[in-house]
Amino acid sequence: MKIAVDGFGGDNSPSEVVKGCINAVNQADDIEIVLVGKQDVLEPMVRERYSGDKISFVNAESVISCEEDPVMAIRRKKDSSLVVLFNLLKDGVVDGGVSAGSSGAVLSCGCFICKRIKGISRPCLIPELPTLKDSTVALADCGANVNCTPEYLLQFAKMGVAYMRAVRKIENPRVGILNNGAEDTKGNELTKNTFALLKASDLNFVGSCEARDLLSGDFDVVVCDGFDGNIALKSCEGTANAIFKLLKEGMAKSLRAKIGAALLYPVLKSIKKKLDYSEKGGAGLVGIQKPFVKCHGSSKAKTFTASILQCNEMAKADLCGKITDIIE
Amino acid sequence: MKIAVDGFGGDNSPSEVVKGCINAVNQADDIEIVLVGKQDVLEPMVRERYSGDKISFVNAESVISCEEDPVMAIRRKKDSSLVVLFNLLKDGVVDGGVSAGSSGAVLSCGCFICKRIKGISRPCLIPELPTLKDSTVALADCGANVNCTPEYLLQFAKMGVAYMRAVRKIENPRVGILNNGAEDTKGNELTKNTFALLKASDLNFVGSCEARDLLSGDFDVVVCDGFDGNIALKSCEGTANAIFKLLKEGMAKSLRAKIGAALLYPVLKSIKKKLDYSEKGGAGLVGIQKPFVKCHGSSKAKTFTASILQCNEMAKADLCGKITDIIE
Repeated sequence: MKIAVDGFGGDNSPSEVVKGCINAVNQADDIEIVLVGKQDVLEPMVRERYSGDKISFVNAESVISCEEDPVMAIRRKKDSSLVVLFNLLKDGVVDGGVSAGSSGAVLSCGCFICKRIKGISRPCLIPELPTLKDSTVALADCGANVNCTPEYLLQFAKMGVAYMRAVRKIENPRVGILNNGAEDTKGNELTKNTFALLKASDLNFVGSCEARDLLSGDFDVVVCDGFDGNIALKSCEGTANAIFKLLKEGMAKSLRAKIGAALLYPVLKSIKKKLDYSEKGGAGLVGIQKPFVKCHGSSKAKTFTASILQCNEMAKADLCGKITDIIE
Repeated sequence: MKIAVDGFGGDNSPSEVVKGCINAVNQADDIEIVLVGKQDVLEPMVRERYSGDKISFVNAESVISCEEDPVMAIRRKKDSSLVVLFNLLKDGVVDGGVSAGSSGAVLSCGCFICKRIKGISRPCLIPELPTLKDSTVALADCGANVNCTPEYLLQFAKMGVAYMRAVRKIENPRVGILNNGAEDTKGNELTKNTFALLKASDLNFVGSCEARDLLSGDFDVVVCDGFDGNIALKSCEGTANAIFKLLKEGMAKSLRAKIGAALLYPVLKSIKKKLDYSEKGGAGLVGIQKPFVKCHGSSKAKTFTASILQCNEMAKADLCGKITDIIE
């Protein structure tokens, strides 16, 4: 598949983006990359470390920053890497897109340039979190929609299911709703009303998911509004960071601890790697007419590589077509 | 102060409750405990391990279970340990109360027997979370109110401030609002409207608290609705549990790891202890006319001890009087 990558999205662009693209085409030979941005900057960087023909370039002179008003910016900066990328997507020149640029601008481009899939009220952002069972759990929505209705959440669930089928090849994903307790009777107005819709749906709905069990591996898709998804995601991230910070401090305190840490290093490293969801790629922007992956602004090469492979899977599995079927 | 403790609240009652009470009176000589529940069960358990006169008994024949409808249960079971305890509180026989019983029943007893403080719309549950700076952060509300208005959240903030002043002796607590980003412009309808109220208030409001920064130590009070508070609290808990589970598994895998773990044990133990918020006690039920601490249903002796000391501080500092002043 042909994946367009925003060469100037994210804090570490363009160098880490370029590295990520080169790793991706070296890893998977069914991927072609169109790198979008200032060609006179990008092309030499690529040529320096890659001589193959799987990476081509489309020039775009400007960049949309996170400080700009998204809607105004995409109207004004027609020559920005993001707008040019989304137009390549819309016109079918490429099969999918990846960017670590401004979330607001990405969402606006998705809705205004690529357009929503017919019947979808709101596209959502779906990241995958690691679990204790060597699987991942898709969190839908993790931040695209902060004010939601039960109908939106039902659609997020359907999109999450289609996503996990397409990208992780899970036949019948187990769907849970993020809730303030494991009991069916728990919840606020939104989750109680959504619970009823999910129960009545033909999805494999397994009930409430207490935030404590998000990483348990007992759910393949957990649905919530974008505000709560963000709270859950960032709380997990913050706690993991806190624990590793405390470990680092504690290890430095004594020779005994230093030696212990050295011996335990492989274990600690594998845990850090397992919990680092950037290894899994970015968040799928699901519900627009083309496959797209939004990476965190701080993404490094490995995340861009994972996101390109992830977008390739979304495209190969015709995720957007599958969502159209589910919604109809 | 005289603290009434529910002898039959929680999964580990009465034995762990009794242990917790004995440890509490042994630790602080300004505490007297009134143990409420089946006296023929409780008194022998206490006498077996404690000969002092700081623990007395009030008999209560029945127990309210978590399965019962709270409001019906407190109407029917006038002789339950919880209802008897709250009547002791209401009548001023004791200065504070502690229970690990049904949250719903505790809240109902608080509102219907003890009554709310004049001007308080909704009492809230305030647990303290550990931070990276040897301080704690009060999360208000963590589960009492799942559907909230900005006015409720403003009151939660005021109660959180009064609580941290009274219990942790922090002069001018820094207040943040749990939000889906650090920027002032972020948020859903509820947090955006609450943000404006907090900014206009005379509280020491320092802005949005991204869930990632909840444990940073940069906030003394973080305000949110009870649903989001539960999501944040349980996400932190679930992630910490996941990491320690992975550590345990990894340590068992090789001799090298086993030795490393043994050497690192003191560090790991101190981190586990630091993050274990049960060490800090239970959640203050704040906004009712008397000091009360609700412990988690799975609480062990150390949590009951910490909760009794915590309730003693709330009573000594006249938390309820302070809240009345703030609200007026």
